[in-house]
Amino acid sequence: MLKNKITKKLIPVCVVSTLALGGLAATITNTNVQAAENERNNDNREIKNVIFLIGDGMGSTYTSGYRYFKDDSSTDAVERTVFDKYLVGQQMTYPEDPTQNVTDSASAATAMSAGVKTYNAAIGVDNDKSKVKTVLEAAKEKGKATGLVATSEITHATPASFGAHDENRKNMNAIADDYYDELVNGKHKIDVLLGGGSSNFVRPDRDLTEEFQKSGFSYVTNKEQLSKDENGQVLGLFASGGLPKMIDRTEEVPSLQDMTTSAIQRLSKDKDGFFLMVEGSQVDWAGHDNDIVGAMSEMEDFEKAAKAAIEYAKKDKHTLVVITADHSTGGYSIGADGNYNWFGQPLKAAKRTPDFMAAEIAKGADVEKTLKTYIDQKLLALTTQEIQSVKDAATTKKVTDIDNAIEEIFNERSHTGWTTGGHTGEDVPVYAYGPHKERFVGQIDNTDHAKILFDLLGKTKK
Amino acid sequence: MLKNKITKKLIPVCVVSTLALGGLAATITNTNVQAAENERNNDNREIKNVIFLIGDGMGSTYTSGYRYFKDDSSTDAVERTVFDKYLVGQQMTYPEDPTQNVTDSASAATAMSAGVKTYNAAIGVDNDKSKVKTVLEAAKEKGKATGLVATSEITHATPASFGAHDENRKNMNAIADDYYDELVNGKHKIDVLLGGGSSNFVRPDRDLTEEFQKSGFSYVTNKEQLSKDENGQVLGLFASGGLPKMIDRTEEVPSLQDMTTSAIQRLSKDKDGFFLMVEGSQVDWAGHDNDIVGAMSEMEDFEKAAKAAIEYAKKDKHTLVVITADHSTGGYSIGADGNYNWFGQPLKAAKRTPDFMAAEIAKGADVEKTLKTYIDQKLLALTTQEIQSVKDAATTKKVTDIDNAIEEIFNERSHTGWTTGGHTGEDVPVYAYGPHKERFVGQIDNTDHAKILFDLLGKTKK
Repeated sequence: MLKNKITKKLIPVCVVSTLALGGLAATITNTNVQAAENERNNDNREIKNVIFLIGDGMGSTYTSGYRYFKDDSSTDAVERTVFDKYLVGQQMTYPEDPTQNVTDSASAATAMSAGVKTYNAAIGVDNDKSKVKTVLEAAKEKGKATGLVATSEITHATPASFGAHDENRKNMNAIADDYYDELVNGKHKIDVLLGGGSSNFVRPDRDLTEEFQKSGFSYVTNKEQLSKDENGQVLGLFASGGLPKMIDRTEEVPSLQDMTTSAIQRLSKDKDGFFLMVEGSQVDWAGHDNDIVGAMSEMEDFEKAAKAAIEYAKKDKHTLVVITADHSTGGYSIGADGNYNWFGQPLKAAKRTPDFMAAEIAKGADVEKTLKTYIDQKLLALTTQEIQSVKDAATTKKVTDIDNAIEEIFNERSHTGWTTGGHTGEDVPVYAYGPHKERFVGQIDNTDHAKILFDLLGKTKK
Repeated sequence: MLKNKITKKLIPVCVVSTLALGGLAATITNTNVQAAENERNNDNREIKNVIFLIGDGMGSTYTSGYRYFKDDSSTDAVERTVFDKYLVGQQMTYPEDPTQNVTDSASAATAMSAGVKTYNAAIGVDNDKSKVKTVLEAAKEKGKATGLVATSEITHATPASFGAHDENRKNMNAIADDYYDELVNGKHKIDVLLGGGSSNFVRPDRDLTEEFQKSGFSYVTNKEQLSKDENGQVLGLFASGGLPKMIDRTEEVPSLQDMTTSAIQRLSKDKDGFFLMVEGSQVDWAGHDNDIVGAMSEMEDFEKAAKAAIEYAKKDKHTLVVITADHSTGGYSIGADGNYNWFGQPLKAAKRTPDFMAAEIAKGADVEKTLKTYIDQKLLALTTQEIQSVKDAATTKKVTDIDNAIEEIFNERSHTGWTTGGHTGEDVPVYAYGPHKERFVGQIDNTDHAKILFDLLGKTKK
């Protein structure tokens, strides 16, 4: 909040000083004046749009590790990621749960969307299970367009906590119902819904895709349909459950960047502005799986979406972009077992995730052929022993065993460490760009995001 | 660098605006004017003193975990640490080493002291083993008083990289020689040396404690002597090697806070100002040992030293305080093995470190009695199984085995995870207080510390 304070307070001081002392103006160049004016305008500009991006599970080891994964080894310095330039601080992630002090995604997202600490599994409800207003709902009340984008089911914990209310994250059908049934000022509260999870919308008891279409929404199910449709209101469901991870996707499945860009194009038609939440959902899923290949795939998918959001904000000049995580996952460490090295190259060798390869092998594909098809042997030449370890795992015919054996190769080759299949409690990084970004500076709490956004939304004209 | 830029640039803008528009002064209250004036002064004030504090191995999981360790469980919110208020960003820690891409403490400290990326083990030398000037030396050239304070040997990698030059950190005798022999403008370059490591100063070939005394330095070896002596130049060595960890210390051994306060009292007598480096050395040692009890002990020792530094800076108003880490250690995670909890209470039960207890047991002390003497049974009631696990380990009579067994109890009870006995490569937090703190804001590199400090020191009058 430092910068804001200074900007506000310095002006009167200068006025007074000038009135008292006078005569300094001659030393000022026009360039300086213009640059300072621009900077000041940038800072205090009215916020019309907010894009809030969450890398689920994206703790500091992921943002750092991804930088080293992407590094161009032909240069001395390590290249910065899209995120780096916008780092403003860290946030605390702890929940208010009677039995757990490390957060889940529902509690963390409710903290960020509504400003309340609550129990793990809570979707937009407080500890007493009462509904709490979210920043998405506040934006809709102000007449803004709203959107949710995710690579998980669009009814999964994180997006759900911005657009629904439920005592338990598991109730994904009820959450889908909320998206349609809960109205703000008589209108559907979410205009753009893009992600996975068609099975929660098309059900024996109800077909929400038809209901949304009857209400004027477009319904799209692949990348081509998404790109051809221009409706300001759209439901896009590109998988039955979560989307495939970036490196496993076919051409039919949009990337997180595709969905983010499409959402911005639609939402920005609203003259009152918009609120958009974008989640890189599966950084976390890869972390749970202790799959470093999947984690880097999803970090890249998320980085590209963040880049699209920032590029829009740079042009628009009235868009605040916040990028953060809800918690970290897996206890991922850059270096393990006493090694003072972490290598990205073996991970670049993977053309598909271990999950993908394991599924092929479990379906009967030859182990060695599958591994050599999907792992670039120039970047990671598999040893006989490594191939044998997967063959041994394949004797159980269980996908999980095969998956674990393949992941182990990548973990060992890269020197990646893991301590858990669950979440971890350290602070996570916060990045911000655009007007009033200084409000997010320093050590903040996850609830501060909602508190700041409510405050900023209250100050917008609409 | 944002804040600095604005402060500098807004003034001319205001002047111009006022000259052009005039008449706004009537709306300004004196309080606002004074507050803004203070803030601006604070920002641009000349830096006289720099206190640079390094928590060795203090990655984000340590600073977060320590907050939860210290939390007052009788209140809803988690209390902030001394560090939290001053968070300004993160730094990258990678070295430039032909065989390792995760840094050691020597390379990281040389990056922070001299602004160059170098190989692991390098003490104030570049990759070609040529000496590089450090910020401590630059401060001495400006006529400032200088000091090094650490809980390791004062010749250990981190302090050494500020005050000596050697191709290998292992040469701690030669590093002690450097402290005495290397002169700046004909004077000893370090005025205050407080820490452990007397065995590197009192040797068959040379007794540096006598040489320092002949040059006018006081020589002190316990807390009482330290507090009674007021000489501006002092060599204080309080252990043969590293100091005992905070919770293992006798009353004779000063805390890091004691040493820091004493160093500031001595150095601040110099009218030209001072540079002081303070290291909480053994957060890292506890991390290497995967000892969460020791880690929290050393975090607390370091926090108190940081508090003393900031309190001095608040009064002085011309002191810049920077607090950071050189890398993280151990792959410590808050939560492990699928548990969504991390508990500080079992760690508060420890009255001594596992190292201390293991040493007693290895010397023949009864296992159960030792454990129950040094572990508060009200906070952590040991099970028969836990006691047996230490008894089993004690059959080998090896301190390491016994130590590991005791550590395992604390790791399991607290749900602490570890992935390595070495370092890890994630970014580490940066905190800053005082004039020009904004120079450290955002995502920086470890070399930026030296670059910024050289720049700021160049701007001081002396």
